[in-house]
Amino acid sequence: VPQPRKPRSDGVRARGAIIREAVSLATIEGLEGLSIGQLADSIEMSKSGVYAHFGSKQEPALAAAPGVGQLVAICDAFFDHLARRTFPGGCFFAGAVLEMGTRPGLVKERITAFQRGFTALIRDFVITAVEQDELPPHEDADALTFELNGIILAANANFVLTGDVGALDMARRVVRRRLGVSTPTAAPHEPAAATQG
Amino acid sequence: VPQPRKPRSDGVRARGAIIREAVSLATIEGLEGLSIGQLADSIEMSKSGVYAHFGSKQEPALAAAPGVGQLVAICDAFFDHLARRTFPGGCFFAGAVLEMGTRPGLVKERITAFQRGFTALIRDFVITAVEQDELPPHEDADALTFELNGIILAANANFVLTGDVGALDMARRVVRRRLGVSTPTAAPHEPAAATQG
Repeated sequence: VPQPRKPRSDGVRARGAIIREAVSLATIEGLEGLSIGQLADSIEMSKSGVYAHFGSKQEPALAAAPGVGQLVAICDAFFDHLARRTFPGGCFFAGAVLEMGTRPGLVKERITAFQRGFTALIRDFVITAVEQDELPPHEDADALTFELNGIILAANANFVLTGDVGALDMARRVVRRRLGVSTPTAAPHEPAAATQG
Repeated sequence: VPQPRKPRSDGVRARGAIIREAVSLATIEGLEGLSIGQLADSIEMSKSGVYAHFGSKQEPALAAAPGVGQLVAICDAFFDHLARRTFPGGCFFAGAVLEMGTRPGLVKERITAFQRGFTALIRDFVITAVEQDELPPHEDADALTFELNGIILAANANFVLTGDVGALDMARRVVRRRLGVSTPTAAPHEPAAATQG
């Protein structure tokens, strides 16, 4: 008789390990190069174990001040993600869109759904920012969403090709100028206790 | 004794056929999926014949009025290229950058060199536009170049995923608003003689 699955204390860690391994592989070999069996082997887990761990990702940006604060936060979260070099091939979804765009099917549908969700989230933030008079009343929410997505994609492409964090600094500046907020004074996630000598 | 190679009247046509076939394959299978032998077979040409046909691509934009005219022309040329659905996977270079970014070697070097050349061309157009007072004197040429590249990449990603030409119309509007020029009144390349009934 199957037992109800208990939450395990190592669940979050295991989920992170699975995602990291799978997406790392995909950013190098492409989605076509992935198999669940190969993935399960490489993290020493059963296939059914691999299937047991999944959810959402956009909570950090939602914790920022509504409106322009959230817009800056979600863009910065993306640039931080690139800066940490989480995956060798940069943003998983940017690559997946171009790879799977020509292949109709479930994977393309899921990628499209994710992109729609991400776009809708940014658009909601823009609308809130307009309602709060942080952006001009005539701001076109669809156009601004498109522009921010473009800045994200340019940061990704530049960083993947050159490995130069200057591309990410540029992207942070461009986002802030576009949204009318001041430029950042310190690199994000810099350890507060770090000293120089 | 080798003879000097004569220009052939079908050279341009042959070059077009080679590029179309090679890049079409690459936008579906990725660059790794290409072989010169396979390509030569599929266009019924010898391998040495395939090697004999190459050069530059940016002449059409250079024919526009210097400055903002050239900036709009080069972006529109890109959107037209997508609208014609020349390749099923959209912009060859956008895909190639993400695919080859993790693979050091000659192909990555060539892609990097092409991207640098394209970026330098746009940046030169921006500088000319500033010198001609078409853009504000404080305009940051690197930042604007980065933004225009982002609009191009967003147009490509959206169009590859959705096939919706609305993404290209959006991109044309965003480019024009960013550069302070009026929106286009007619679709480009529309046959002048077309009638409605």
